[in-house]
Amino acid sequence: MNKWENNIRRVVPYVPGEQPVGDRLIKLNTNENPYPPAPGVLRALQEMDYHRFRKYPDPAASVLVESLAEYHQVGADQVFVGVGSDDVLAMAFLTFFNSGKPVLFPDVSYSFYKVWAELFGIPYETPALDGDFRICTEDYKRENGGVIFPNPNAPTGLFMPLDQVRKILDGNEDVIVIVDEAYIDFGGVSALELLSEYENLLVVRTFSKSRSMAGIRIGYGVGSPRLIRALNDVKYSYNSYTMNMPSLALGVAAVKDQAYFEATTGRIMATRQQAKVRLRELGFSFPDSMANFIFASHKRVFAEQIFEALKKEQIYVRYFKQPRLENHLRITIGTDEEMERLYKFLGEYLG
Amino acid sequence: MNKWENNIRRVVPYVPGEQPVGDRLIKLNTNENPYPPAPGVLRALQEMDYHRFRKYPDPAASVLVESLAEYHQVGADQVFVGVGSDDVLAMAFLTFFNSGKPVLFPDVSYSFYKVWAELFGIPYETPALDGDFRICTEDYKRENGGVIFPNPNAPTGLFMPLDQVRKILDGNEDVIVIVDEAYIDFGGVSALELLSEYENLLVVRTFSKSRSMAGIRIGYGVGSPRLIRALNDVKYSYNSYTMNMPSLALGVAAVKDQAYFEATTGRIMATRQQAKVRLRELGFSFPDSMANFIFASHKRVFAEQIFEALKKEQIYVRYFKQPRLENHLRITIGTDEEMERLYKFLGEYLG
Repeated sequence: MNKWENNIRRVVPYVPGEQPVGDRLIKLNTNENPYPPAPGVLRALQEMDYHRFRKYPDPAASVLVESLAEYHQVGADQVFVGVGSDDVLAMAFLTFFNSGKPVLFPDVSYSFYKVWAELFGIPYETPALDGDFRICTEDYKRENGGVIFPNPNAPTGLFMPLDQVRKILDGNEDVIVIVDEAYIDFGGVSALELLSEYENLLVVRTFSKSRSMAGIRIGYGVGSPRLIRALNDVKYSYNSYTMNMPSLALGVAAVKDQAYFEATTGRIMATRQQAKVRLRELGFSFPDSMANFIFASHKRVFAEQIFEALKKEQIYVRYFKQPRLENHLRITIGTDEEMERLYKFLGEYLG
Repeated sequence: MNKWENNIRRVVPYVPGEQPVGDRLIKLNTNENPYPPAPGVLRALQEMDYHRFRKYPDPAASVLVESLAEYHQVGADQVFVGVGSDDVLAMAFLTFFNSGKPVLFPDVSYSFYKVWAELFGIPYETPALDGDFRICTEDYKRENGGVIFPNPNAPTGLFMPLDQVRKILDGNEDVIVIVDEAYIDFGGVSALELLSEYENLLVVRTFSKSRSMAGIRIGYGVGSPRLIRALNDVKYSYNSYTMNMPSLALGVAAVKDQAYFEATTGRIMATRQQAKVRLRELGFSFPDSMANFIFASHKRVFAEQIFEALKKEQIYVRYFKQPRLENHLRITIGTDEEMERLYKFLGEYLG
C-alpha cells in the first residue's frame, strides 16, 4: 500500500442498486412514480433557452425557493433546496448534528441516515421499532445530539400521527428534529403545520416520488429562518451552485400544476387501496401503508424466493437481506396495468 | 440563544457574488464563456424525453464518464464527475485530506480551498506567491497533508510549466496532489500527461468555462483508478444521484463537438491576445494570462476606482478587496464587441 492511501477517508463502499433496463420489464423496486411529470414540465423543457447555459445559475435558486414558499404558505427564508432530498439531508447532518452526543433514528428506517453519520463521524443510536414496526416515542426522550425519522417510515410505509410527532418534539427542545417526509403526499398529514410552534423542526421533502421528477434531483427543507440560514451558510461553504438551470425551471413548472399533482397522487392512492385487497387475497400481510409502496410478507413462501421468481418474470421489486426485513418485499405502486401483471403472476406462482 | 443552536456547525457565512441582470450590461466578472454551448447541446435539449424524468438517473453517470474517458484516452475507472468542479473539489478535500497535517495551497489562489478546509476542519498553510505572483515549488517540499493549486492559477491567470508541476509531485509522493485545471483549455498544457507516472495525482476540470456550461454544473476529476474509487466511495456515501438527467445528456453532447470547442476557445485566446495589446496601451500591466481573464492593475488609477466607474457604465468586472490583490481587476475575456466597449470607456475615463 502506498503511503498516500493512509489519508483516504474510510467509508463502507456502497454499491448503487440494480437499475434494470428493458421494454417489457416492470420496475416496482425504487418507489418511482409511474406517471410522467406534469405537462407544464414538458412546456418548460421546450421553452428552455440553451444560450443561457453559458452563465452560472442563481446560487440562491430564488425562483424555486419562492415557488415552494408560496406553495407551502411560508416565507422564502424558510425554504432550502438541494440536489434531491439526499443532498438536503446530508447537508442537515453536517450542519446540525455536531454535539458529540448520539443522534437518534429508528433501527428500521431510511438506510442513508447511518451512512451519513458514519461519513461525518457522528455518533448514533437506533432505537428499535416495536413488533408492529411502529416508532416508540418514549425511546426518543433520552439525551441525544439530534433526532431524525421518516414519516411515513420507509420501508414500512407506516404513518405516525402528528400527536406522536409532537411528543417527540416536546421531548427534544434542545436539539434539531428532522422529519423526512419523502412519502407524505400519498395520504399522510405533514408536520409543516407544527413549524410555527417548533423553531428546531426541519421538514424535508422531495420531488422524486409525488412529483415524478427523480431524474431531475430536487429536494427541499422547510423550517425556521434560523435553521434555513444555517443550512445555507454550510451549503455556500460547500458548493454555491448546486441547482442547475434545467432543475430550477423544471422544478418551478412542477410546483405550479396542482391539479395534475392531485390527480396522479390520487391515482396512486387508489391503486394502493386496490393492491391491499389483492395482495391480501394472495396471502400477503403488511403494515397499513400511507406511502407509494407496500411492505409485504407472505404467509407461506419466503420473500427472497418470491423476489427471485418475480425477477425471472422481469418484475422488479425490492428485497432487503437484513435482520427484521428479510421476509418482506417492498413493492412500489405502479400503474393499474403493471399491478395487474404482478397479481396475475403471483396468483399463478403462489396458487 | 436557544440550546439547539449550540450544535450548529460554525462557518464563515459566505455571500454569493453579484449576479447583475439586464440587456445592456456587459458581464466580465465571473469568467463565463461569451459564446453559447455547442450546437449539439441544443439538439440534445430538443431531443430530451421528459417522460424519463420520473425515473432515477444512472448513479454512475456512465454515459458522461465514458465520453470523458474516451475524450482523454483514459479508462472509465479513471474519471469522476460531479456537480461542477466545486463539487468534485469539495469531495476530494473530504476524501483525501484526512491526515491531520496541514494541506498546502498558494496564498493567492482559488478562494474556496480555504472555505472547504474550514468547513471540514482540515488544517492548512498558504505559502506566498513570489513578487511576480509565481508559485515557488520549493515551498511545497515541507511535510504536509496534501497539496492543491490551480493551473493556470486564479485570479492571476499564470500558467506553471509542467516541469515545475513535476517538481511539486516529486516532492510529494506520500500525499495526494490536486491540480485544478479549470482554465487549462485556454492555452496551457495539462498535467493529464503525468497521470501514468503519478498514482497520487488528481486533475480536476470543469464545463463552466471552456465548454460554456456554467448553468448546467458539470465538473470532473481524472486520476488513477485507486483515487477515483475512493472518491466514488465517499460520493456514494453522501448522495448517490448527484448528476441529473439533463446534465448527463447535455454534457455528453458538449464533449462530442470538438470542432466547436476549438473554434470558441481559439476565439477567446485571440481576443485575449488583442486585450493584452489594448490594455497595455491604456496603461495597464498584468501577469501573462493563459486563462479566459486578465488580472490587471493600472499605473495611475486605483483598481477600486476603475471598478466603480465601470459599474456605473454597466460593465461588470471583478474586484477583490484583499491584501496583494486590492489594486487589480480581474477582467473576463468577452466577445470582441464587448471588449471594444470596455476599451472605449477606459480610453475616455483614463485619457
